[in-house]
Order: sequence, then C-alpha cells, then structure tokens
Amino acid sequence: MSLLTETVAAIIPASSEAMTAAVERQSMLTKPLGSLGALEELGTALCGMYGQCPPPLPEPVTIAVFAGDHGVHAQGVSPWPQEVTTQMVGNFLAGGAVINAFGRQVGAEVIVIDIGVAGEVLPAQGLQARKIAAGTADMTQGPAMTPAQVLAAIDVGIEVARNCVAAGSRLLVTGDMGIANTTASAALISVFTGLDVADVTGRGTGIDNPMLAHKVSVIETAIRTNQASPNDPLQALAAVGGFEHAGVVGYLLAAAALRTPVILDGVIACSAALVARAIAPVAADYWIAGHRSVEPGASAALAHLDLAPLVDLGMRLGEGSGAALAVPLVQASARILREVATFDSAGVSNKE
Amino acid sequence: MSLLTETVAAIIPASSEAMTAAVERQSMLTKPLGSLGALEELGTALCGMYGQCPPPLPEPVTIAVFAGDHGVHAQGVSPWPQEVTTQMVGNFLAGGAVINAFGRQVGAEVIVIDIGVAGEVLPAQGLQARKIAAGTADMTQGPAMTPAQVLAAIDVGIEVARNCVAAGSRLLVTGDMGIANTTASAALISVFTGLDVADVTGRGTGIDNPMLAHKVSVIETAIRTNQASPNDPLQALAAVGGFEHAGVVGYLLAAAALRTPVILDGVIACSAALVARAIAPVAADYWIAGHRSVEPGASAALAHLDLAPLVDLGMRLGEGSGAALAVPLVQASARILREVATFDSAGVSNKE
Repeated sequence: MSLLTETVAAIIPASSEAMTAAVERQSMLTKPLGSLGALEELGTALCGMYGQCPPPLPEPVTIAVFAGDHGVHAQGVSPWPQEVTTQMVGNFLAGGAVINAFGRQVGAEVIVIDIGVAGEVLPAQGLQARKIAAGTADMTQGPAMTPAQVLAAIDVGIEVARNCVAAGSRLLVTGDMGIANTTASAALISVFTGLDVADVTGRGTGIDNPMLAHKVSVIETAIRTNQASPNDPLQALAAVGGFEHAGVVGYLLAAAALRTPVILDGVIACSAALVARAIAPVAADYWIAGHRSVEPGASAALAHLDLAPLVDLGMRLGEGSGAALAVPLVQASARILREVATFDSAGVSNKE
Repeated sequence: MSLLTETVAAIIPASSEAMTAAVERQSMLTKPLGSLGALEELGTALCGMYGQCPPPLPEPVTIAVFAGDHGVHAQGVSPWPQEVTTQMVGNFLAGGAVINAFGRQVGAEVIVIDIGVAGEVLPAQGLQARKIAAGTADMTQGPAMTPAQVLAAIDVGIEVARNCVAAGSRLLVTGDMGIANTTASAALISVFTGLDVADVTGRGTGIDNPMLAHKVSVIETAIRTNQASPNDPLQALAAVGGFEHAGVVGYLLAAAALRTPVILDGVIACSAALVARAIAPVAADYWIAGHRSVEPGASAALAHLDLAPLVDLGMRLGEGSGAALAVPLVQASARILREVATFDSAGVSNKE
C-alpha cells in the first residue's frame, strides 16, 4: 500500500461526542453563552479534532515552509527573479524573514523543506533537503510534474507531518515559498472551484495590470493544454500545481490522519486544501483557516471549503505568515475550555 | 494643577519623524512592500507612539480591568443580577475568568481595579482597591456621578497607567467589568457621535427584544434628563457614564502622556475613548483598536475614532478579552521592523 493510500485510509471524522461535550461545557463557563463568537466554535471544533474535551493546549507548534520553483516563471508571470526562492530559503534558515519573526512571536518552530527549489540550498539547521527536482516544468507546455513526481512530493509532505507529530507537535501550520506559486495556486483554484481564471487570479507579490492580464492568459492556456479536471485530483495537481502544493497536500492529509489540527495560510495552502479535500473529503475536519489573504483565489477557495478565516489584515506575503498570526487565537480557544471556571465552581450567579 | 490638567498638558502628537523612518524601513525589508497590510501600518504607527524606529518590542503588557456597578441596573436593563460584578471580580482575582486565560495566552499581567463595585471585594493579589462609591447613581434620576466623583475616578485611571508604566509596562490593554455597563456605554456613544440611541444600543451580554427596547428608552431618558452634551465631556461622562468608564478615560489619557500604546477593548473602552478624545484630541494617536465587538455602539465609536480593529471574531464578552487577543498582533507588527532582514543584508534580489 502506498503512503498516500495508507494515509487516506487512516483519516476518520472529527469526534462528534467530543464536540457535543464541548458545546455543553461552553454553556457552563463563566461567560455569557456565545459571547466569544468564533472562538467558541473553534474550541468546540478542536475537541472534535483531538477527540477529547477539553482539548489539549495546541502546542508545541511547527510551521513547515515548503519551497519550490516553477517552470511557468519563464512565461513572465512575476516581477521577481526566480533566484529569490533560493535566496529567501537562505533568509528563512538564517532567521531573517517575516515567518521567522512571527514564529518567534507565537512560539512556533519554523522548518524549511526544499521540495523543489531550482537553486542549490546549503545544509543548515531547520532545513529538510527533499528536492524532487530543480523546479517544475512549464505548465503551459505540458504537465508541471510527472505522475511519479507528484506522488513523491505528496509523500514528502506526509513524512514531514508525521515527523512533526512524532516529535511532539500538536498544531501544524502551512507555509510556502516559490516565486510564481500564486500562478499555480490560481490554476488549481479555478479547476477545483469551477470559477473563471480571471476571478481567482491576483497580483501575488505585486504585479501591474498588463502582467495580471498575461498571468490570467497563461493560466487559461495551462488548464486547457493539460485538460486539468477536478475529477482526477492527482492529475490536476500534477498538471498545474507545484512541488510545494503537492507537499502541502500530503501534509494536510497526514495531519488529518494523525488527528492534528493544521492552520492553513493563504492562497497556496487553500489551493492545496482543495486538492486534498478532493482526495479525502473528511480530512477537511482538521483544517483551520488562518487568515484571509487579499489574493482573490484565497477567498474563493475558503468559501468552497466552507471555512471562515480567523485573521483578516490585508496580508499577501505567504511563507505561512498569516497562519502563524492565528496560532494564539487557536490556543486561546482551547484555553477557554481548559482554564475558565464554571458558574458553579466560581460561585458566580447565572443569567436570571 | 490637577492630575487631569497635568496629564492633558503632557500629551504630544506621535512622532512624524519616527513614522517617516518606519515607512522607509518597511520598503527595505525582505517582503513585497505592503504585503503585510494593516500590520505594516500598525508597526509604523508604533514607531510614532514610542518616538523611535524600530520601535521597542511592546512588552511587558498589562491588562487593567476597571470594575464598577451602575445605579441604572435598577431600571431592568440587564438579565444578570448586580452581584455578578462582585462575583466576577472574585473570579478575575482567582484567575478563573476568560481574561485570565487570555492574559496567560499572550503573556500579559491582569490587574483589577475596584473603582466602584457595589459589593465588598476582599484584598487579594492583583487587586487595587480604589472604590469611589458602591456603584453609580441611577442616571435616569440625575447624574450617575457627582463632579467630584468623576474627577476622582479619572485620577484613579491616570494613576493606574502611571504605575503600570513606572513598573515597566510598554503596552497597556483596557479591560472592564460592570453589570449594566453597556447601557452607560451606549449613552456615551450616542452623546459623542450624535447617533440615535437605538442605533448604538446592543444586547450586551444577552437580552431579548423587549428588554432591548426598554434599554433604549432608559438611555434616552437618561440623556434627556441630564442634558448630556459632547461640548462638556466631563459633565456628559458624569451624567451617563460609569466609574469604570471614567477610570478608562484617565488610563487612556495618561498612557498617551507617557507615550505608551493602549489597545482598546470593546464598547466600554470605545465609549471612554470618545470622551477622552473630546478632552484631548491628540491622545488618540496612542490608541489601537483591539477588536470589533458585536455591540453596534462599538463599531459606531470606532468609525467616529477613525480606528480599524485588528480582530473581528464576533465577540461580546468585555473584560478586555478582545483587546488581549490583539496583543500578539501588535507585537508582531513591531517585530517586522525590529527583526526582518533587509534585501541588502540578506542578499535577496528585489523586484525587477
């Protein structure tokens, strides 16, 4: 049995018993019922994921940044040179990027997976060297990945999540790096939501109107050339995805199999989540939307996934930065159920 | 010179030099300019408040929960018995309330100020016994506070903020407790925004439609009876405010005088901020909107203050809970400017 098959087979729905217990417990705590809004629902969902009420405190936390390059960069879809992917991986490993600063803020470890960076990445602490190839092929000319490559990349993601959980992580966060990866993300989102490419394609790290129009046209060509279809998720992922997308797909599925919540970052994670849900619908029980990226594809994917984001600050950086900011909110929602006194225990009168 | 006069005289605008330096620094850091959305603006604003770029890391953090009771409770504006204020103060001091759980989550100290609780509060660690009176008078019958009481309550807030900053706090958070205090808040918000009472009055901790209609009518009576006007902020505060509102007014003004940012919680803090801004407009440079409470008055006040909230999770608890959740976001915005490498230093190519 392949690692993917084994992983999918191990996924079970979130525990409805634990969630029922959580709903009852929420009503006994010293706060007006419902007064914590989305955090009450999130705490209840966490109980379902972990299968216990109250839930464990979701820590330690690992942010896994999957980094890869994209053959479609050659089509001129980004104003940034491709070597920025390699350079930013170096920046992550040196602790100088935004995701490192945010990781320190929320007490999360940042690991970087070279799953397909075009340039050479030197060994360093925090690096997992799992390069499938030096970037994907140009999706406008044929599939971005071969069938063997996409499965290998998914396996990397599965192994990363397994290793994180084996090392003690109780909360995972998705991260990504890859110049041109919003192009692959928009392609996947168009395929899996059925929305027009123009409606789900954004400016990524910052492009002007002519480049945006060109990007839409490139994505339309890629989808048409490869006949990408939501009915064959692995084929679609191979056709118009990226190594980091496939890695995140494996990571999301393995986390679900291990009953470990994952916070989704922006448009790359949301596009991978659409693929992962097409492979294993129940896995979505274990995913939390970290933030609303300004990329239009991210909102489209979240709506399709029926997930409401925790943070909405107009961000569009990637790296896992938006999801990292949601970590304290997820932990706070668990603390409500773990730490807040009941009306009885605190001697507080309830509503008349 | 009174403490209030001295405090107001000490308030100076945020530093435009530091903010200019921050805007320039944001453009040099290894991220697409603007990609961190509201957090970039917030980091820049923090530089202005602290008067330096990069800003210090905003820690340690103190959450000051001002607790008081309200004579208007006798009019039947809340389904909760008045003794819940005293009981919840006990819960705070025992560490069992939501604000305690959230304080632990974000590494903030919680202090409780009995500025006007009706019941007896026993001495405990974390309590500041500064009771002005055992609850305000019923605002439908005359002013809630005398002129001397309102000044004394403002002085308490000033002294609390001064003591926090003297003890090392670099970030303050507002908190409150007081059954019926959304009634006083809605009254202040109507007076200072000019909006109809019905448009700024909400369900507080949870009331049904008949009680909501009654609450609106009670507030209208109180404003009319006392002829509360935004042109005389101290008179209006005394007329329809509460001890905790007056305490927060002092706290907000003193924080500004000490160039220390304050995160505003929900409707109580926002109503107090309207009063404080009417007293000293420049003080608003130092306030950060923590979250958007579901209370309609909170959104009205934030719009009037021209502040955009960081967190929007459908919360309506009070205590400082929404503002506490914004603490890591504020700290993250400072970390961007303090910790993220520049393109030059990290050897990362900039956009072409």
